[in-house]
Amino acid sequence: MSEHSIQVAVLMGSASDAPVLAPCMETLDAYGVRYETAVRSAHRTPAETADFVARAEERGVGVFIAAAGMAAHLAGAVAAHTTRPVIGLPIASGPLQGRDALLSTVMMPIGIPVATVGINAAANAAHLAVEILSVSDDGLKAKIVKKREEMRRKVIEANPVVRGK
Amino acid sequence: MSEHSIQVAVLMGSASDAPVLAPCMETLDAYGVRYETAVRSAHRTPAETADFVARAEERGVGVFIAAAGMAAHLAGAVAAHTTRPVIGLPIASGPLQGRDALLSTVMMPIGIPVATVGINAAANAAHLAVEILSVSDDGLKAKIVKKREEMRRKVIEANPVVRGK
Amino acid sequence: MSEHSIQVAVLMGSASDAPVLAPCMETLDAYGVRYETAVRSAHRTPAETADFVARAEERGVGVFIAAAGMAAHLAGAVAAHTTRPVIGLPIASGPLQGRDALLSTVMMPIGIPVATVGINAAANAAHLAVEILSVSDDGLKAKIVKKREEMRRKVIEANPVVRGK
Amino acid sequence: MSEHSIQVAVLMGSASDAPVLAPCMETLDAYGVRYETAVRSAHRTPAETADFVARAEERGVGVFIAAAGMAAHLAGAVAAHTTRPVIGLPIASGPLQGRDALLSTVMMPIGIPVATVGINAAANAAHLAVEILSVSDDGLKAKIVKKREEMRRKVIEANPVVRGK
Amino acid sequence: MSEHSIQVAVLMGSASDAPVLAPCMETLDAYGVRYETAVRSAHRTPAETADFVARAEERGVGVFIAAAGMAAHLAGAVAAHTTRPVIGLPIASGPLQGRDALLSTVMMPIGIPVATVGINAAANAAHLAVEILSVSDDGLKAKIVKKREEMRRKVIEANPVVRGK
Amino acid sequence: MSEHSIQVAVLMGSASDAPVLAPCMETLDAYGVRYETAVRSAHRTPAETADFVARAEERGVGVFIAAAGMAAHLAGAVAAHTTRPVIGLPIASGPLQGRDALLSTVMMPIGIPVATVGINAAANAAHLAVEILSVSDDGLKAKIVKKREEMRRKVIEANPVVRGK
Amino acid sequence: MSEHSIQVAVLMGSASDAPVLAPCMETLDAYGVRYETAVRSAHRTPAETADFVARAEERGVGVFIAAAGMAAHLAGAVAAHTTRPVIGLPIASGPLQGRDALLSTVMMPIGIPVATVGINAAANAAHLAVEILSVSDDGLKAKIVKKREEMRRKVIEANPVVRGK
Amino acid sequence: MSEHSIQVAVLMGSASDAPVLAPCMETLDAYGVRYETAVRSAHRTPAETADFVARAEERGVGVFIAAAGMAAHLAGAVAAHTTRPVIGLPIASGPLQGRDALLSTVMMPIGIPVATVGINAAANAAHLAVEILSVSDDGLKAKIVKKREEMRRKVIEANPVVRGK
Repeated sequence: MSEHSIQVAVLMGSASDAPVLAPCMETLDAYGVRYETAVRSAHRTPAETADFVARAEERGVGVFIAAAGMAAHLAGAVAAHTTRPVIGLPIASGPLQGRDALLSTVMMPIGIPVATVGINAAANAAHLAVEILSVSDDGLKAKIVKKREEMRRKVIEANPVVRGK
Repeated sequence: MSEHSIQVAVLMGSASDAPVLAPCMETLDAYGVRYETAVRSAHRTPAETADFVARAEERGVGVFIAAAGMAAHLAGAVAAHTTRPVIGLPIASGPLQGRDALLSTVMMPIGIPVATVGINAAANAAHLAVEILSVSDDGLKAKIVKKREEMRRKVIEANPVVRGK
Repeated sequence: MSEHSIQVAVLMGSASDAPVLAPCMETLDAYGVRYETAVRSAHRTPAETADFVARAEERGVGVFIAAAGMAAHLAGAVAAHTTRPVIGLPIASGPLQGRDALLSTVMMPIGIPVATVGINAAANAAHLAVEILSVSDDGLKAKIVKKREEMRRKVIEANPVVRGK
Repeated sequence: MSEHSIQVAVLMGSASDAPVLAPCMETLDAYGVRYETAVRSAHRTPAETADFVARAEERGVGVFIAAAGMAAHLAGAVAAHTTRPVIGLPIASGPLQGRDALLSTVMMPIGIPVATVGINAAANAAHLAVEILSVSDDGLKAKIVKKREEMRRKVIEANPVVRGK
Repeated sequence: MSEHSIQVAVLMGSASDAPVLAPCMETLDAYGVRYETAVRSAHRTPAETADFVARAEERGVGVFIAAAGMAAHLAGAVAAHTTRPVIGLPIASGPLQGRDALLSTVMMPIGIPVATVGINAAANAAHLAVEILSVSDDGLKAKIVKKREEMRRKVIEANPVVRGK
Repeated sequence: MSEHSIQVAVLMGSASDAPVLAPCMETLDAYGVRYETAVRSAHRTPAETADFVARAEERGVGVFIAAAGMAAHLAGAVAAHTTRPVIGLPIASGPLQGRDALLSTVMMPIGIPVATVGINAAANAAHLAVEILSVSDDGLKAKIVKKREEMRRKVIEANPVVRGK
Repeated sequence: MSEHSIQVAVLMGSASDAPVLAPCMETLDAYGVRYETAVRSAHRTPAETADFVARAEERGVGVFIAAAGMAAHLAGAVAAHTTRPVIGLPIASGPLQGRDALLSTVMMPIGIPVATVGINAAANAAHLAVEILSVSDDGLKAKIVKKREEMRRKVIEANPVVRGK
Repeated sequence: MSEHSIQVAVLMGSASDAPVLAPCMETLDAYGVRYETAVRSAHRTPAETADFVARAEERGVGVFIAAAGMAAHLAGAVAAHTTRPVIGLPIASGPLQGRDALLSTVMMPIGIPVATVGINAAANAAHLAVEILSVSDDGLKAKIVKKREEMRRKVIEANPVVRGK
């Protein structure tokens, strides 16, 4: 894996999911993690999805993020074509508001896991990807530790104990 | 399509689903419909699943039945590789007892429908396949009409109106 | 079945469901499939529903689409009166947003299947109807193959792989 | 309505529901209410169901009880053919254990109500039928008052306040 | 019961439920059924609720309608104090949108049934009350038959069969 | 409140709930808290339930525990008749396995809260009662602290860190 | 516990929950109960949450209220660090609208109960806290009795029995 | 990280979860991944849980697996104390059969993700842990590729296409 290779590949099942995914990209940017994004559909472009996954792995991708709504098969389809960790991000689209996508993403058969985050939790998909990369990257781990400390301080300093009447 | 070609292909996601599927085969047999069955996994054997679908279509298959439990992607994966009607049969395996499989099977994106039947409704998957084939097969339609009439008579004759005390 | 006979009958349980059904008609139009539509209620007009189904079958209808919300009995009521494939389209009306309609449509008893598509998936009801008709209509099958290829190209060409910062 | 006419008609969607329905008959017997029972299916015998309802009403039936599981359309189908009150009894059959039957029974369209009781609550279907008949039958009302008093006494006398250690 | 006595009592758990209940009153008015309404709470005014029920029964009330949201105990509390049929109307208030109210209303213990209608189905609560009263009132029954016929005609005449392109 | 007055009253909706409630009594016994138990039904014995609550409060009861299944109204009915804290214990009876009882117990209207514990969590109903009593009873608080320490030690000592192969 | 010590501590998992919590503070104010509030996160500030709980208990806090949405761990985390009663208030944030928060709050393990109130029921969290404090505070109990009487009168006086047409 | 340091730490919320977790240990053993296991409770032993996590990270642990049922807070509590990836394994204990545990595990707040696998999917928790470790361990990756190939062959070879009658 070269110094400048792509580290994370982010797939979404439909271009309409892009706004929900914005915090994912922003979080990856904040960590300086290199990524690429693409819209690929498990059902409309199965061959291109498999092809994208294979090429992304060649380009050095260590973690995949796959976001989809309703009968969300994308994360599972990606996981079927790689041994890299696949993070599944269920999207709250349609009348069931992501209940369908959550179950379609998380209840995978033995041997092909999907690391599922919360419904619409785009930022957390990125946080998890960064944590996974940091297992072998102490610089990245240090950044996470610093970010956690900022989160902690932000909660405490902005929220003093207040006495009621 | 030759006189003796295969008419229905039945896929199941796991060999452990076979007992639940038995009424499907029995129903196809009762109608004299020619079928083939195979265990193929959307996640463990994606290439073989796609390959099976392509070959089945060449062998003259008019309708696919795909049965799977939990994050049931099999019917969707089959539908992604054929334009033949795909019947999805959600299986009640695991702690959610088919609620997951139902949503994973039915909530498909636009353009790639799956004709979903009830959870564990293996016989109905076969009945639906036969109905679809009968659209252009008057002999088969006559058999269904006869079967319906038998069902009707069986309900009525076996169940006379009974007066309470 | 004559050259110009009606191929698909679309029933809806209430005139208020018409806007949700628009993509169904548009899709049938796009394929040049001949259809007729009617509002019939399983509960308010049971006799007229049965009558419509019988006449539609005489007019050559090969597939029925039945759309209804809440305790959605329409598809089941149509299926009780025909041996043609019946596609059930659950509508997201009322406080349960189609969960009720999905279960009321899909969980049919043995022998009377309903081919259920996703909640509000009006376009998919039409796609499935066209797939069913195409089993014995190679011209229609060619159109679906072409449409699938368009869908595929639209996803890929509009969505190149993009590198993040 | 003659002195000895049938007062309640109990329909069940399948003969397999009979054991669950036993407390319904026992309760009607206990009140001395005259009833008749039949197995009729909304989907397999739609014409016979409509016919049974019409004849039952002629025989003087004041209240219908309809029990069914899964996509439980029977109560709705009965209600479509009578203006007599229809009591819907959802049965816990299949993997969804009556959740499907409850929603399929209770979420009826405007104008065709079904008086729904709890899942598997066969005795309560009978109690409700008796209450409805008692609106114009003071003798029956007196029996219910007496039964309620018995229930009350049974709870209190059998369950004294007990002190812990 | 005098000629002009109250026939139906409508209770609601909170004054904020009144707008949802409007179709109930309109339907009772359309049938010329005499009714009274009151806001009574199972939890805030248990004694007044019991008292209202007892007095309403004395005033000749034949049927109660009780509407409430969330942990909807009102119908059950009314049923505990009368042997008249009690119609439970679950209201879709709060984040669970009536799922809680439906279960709290319908899953009653043996001996104290509540005749439950659909979530927010205020008109149907009235239709059911009228059907119950009509068991011993042929004039009312004739009105329901006429209303049903109007409903039937309205569906059919307003919705001719339409041919697609 | 005398030295030896009853501290907790435990009501259950049905004698059949007693086995599920056993850990509640055992826990109260373990803490030496004085309690009384009774079977009272919100629907079959509304007056006796109200009466029991009023007398229990006179006997010095500081906390009520009310256990019920299905449309579990008992805790709410108790809360309507006392200002003492009422702990609601939903029981997993019937086909919905306590989902109905949980919602019927917890979703109370403003002003009449029920302190709800988990489905079938009988021991926790007792633990919560003891915690509430301990707010003004330092001896009881000391016992809870000791019990917590025992629980902590039991987890740690019985479960050393174990290395895999 | 001094005369003027803090009686209730209100924690929320996120500052964005503050508007939903406003009725909690207003209710505590109405009762003249002394409280303090703070934003603390079970996940972002676990040490500070534990620390806040320990100090609050030293300041005399008798009851904790913990409000959180989604995988709502805050109430459980507070309960793990105190033997004071902890009231859990599930917040309806995110696509599941509090169903997740309700289950995450109420289904606690044996020995560490959380007294759960309804989703978004901020006022009831306060009412329950006041009831708990009133077990040993007759002045507070008198205020609750008075408040209940006001609630009762408000329902009855504002809502006379109204006769329909 | 030394050659022989522990790579995965497996925590379970209760010793009673051990049988469900067995396939997790077996899978880690099959890959030759070094791990340690411990029972720690988010609620009964919060300090020891935090302590275990800190020490495990010092011992070189790269990935945590946390298994718990009901209001499953363990994975979240672990994630609050480490920046290593935390895999959450919801256990199907109690009447809700893991629905509660799934939501309590997956719906985490921003910044503290939990990589959730399916309910009771113990083997998949291990597979995911191994995939995460393999991102920087080509030997482990080769083992996964080989295992996947075995899984693939096992499906295909054991399940030839079978022709029906």
